[in-house]
Amino acid sequence: MTGMFAQRVSIEQIEEGFELAPKFDADGLLPVVTTSAKTGEVLMLGYMTEEALKLTIQTGEAHYYSRSRKKLWRKGADSGLLQIVKEIRVDDDQDAVWISVEIDGPYGEASCHVGYRSCFYRSVAVGQGEDKPAKLEFEEDELVFDPKEVYGDAPNPTQV
Amino acid sequence: MTGMFAQRVSIEQIEEGFELAPKFDADGLLPVVTTSAKTGEVLMLGYMTEEALKLTIQTGEAHYYSRSRKKLWRKGADSGLLQIVKEIRVDDDQDAVWISVEIDGPYGEASCHVGYRSCFYRSVAVGQGEDKPAKLEFEEDELVFDPKEVYGDAPNPTQV
Repeated sequence: MTGMFAQRVSIEQIEEGFELAPKFDADGLLPVVTTSAKTGEVLMLGYMTEEALKLTIQTGEAHYYSRSRKKLWRKGADSGLLQIVKEIRVDDDQDAVWISVEIDGPYGEASCHVGYRSCFYRSVAVGQGEDKPAKLEFEEDELVFDPKEVYGDAPNPTQV
Repeated sequence: MTGMFAQRVSIEQIEEGFELAPKFDADGLLPVVTTSAKTGEVLMLGYMTEEALKLTIQTGEAHYYSRSRKKLWRKGADSGLLQIVKEIRVDDDQDAVWISVEIDGPYGEASCHVGYRSCFYRSVAVGQGEDKPAKLEFEEDELVFDPKEVYGDAPNPTQV
């Protein structure tokens, strides 16, 4: 464990203390909520390893762990859609992180590999009846960039 | 599987389709970002099972799975801090959900079992030097409710 993170010793230390004592899961991952510093919109949900969290804190650029590519992922290294971290928050039991970012790229706030601004570009209607197929609605009208132009032939991270 | 969720058949269906085809992890869980419909603030990061997601969609009240108590958790059942779901979003590969909620309780936007408004009440400074212990700062000044009054002697969900 890096000297940046404290050992977890008590509930009081974890919930009310001033030490960063993150809890990574059995796979060594911590979920991360990423929002736009400009609009507050949730852009993505990612995962960080110890190394990714450490690099994010040190460099101020968002680093994740790509579960599909199974490696450290400096967001934007391939696409140019870098995320400049404006704020990092940690939750009560320190098993989740929230980062607020500015995106320094050619496509505005674009963050999603499909080409939309946010990964959360579809909604599910609330209050639908029992056991009928739930339908999705698109909340973003158009792609903000062409994934083929940005990623070329790189494999799609989405897995069936 | 309930009739509410579609089978996952192709990347195109998952990313660009109109069917809800969520992917639960090996433990049967899906991470959920919960934000305030009023302020946009991230309140918590939770997890849903198939049953919890189905109930959330059907009832419009946020249901989660409590990993510490190992059971379905209708948020607010004990504390009265019910979450009324205003919007549900699903992400590109449908392995994460974002819900926007109003909290219908006696303590305003309170959502965190420690007594704060958001679970993310502490920040980590960005750009800290290598291998020095990272320090946390409190971003909320005071508790919005007294956890002892609300939860009594119920066990604390935080685990060391």
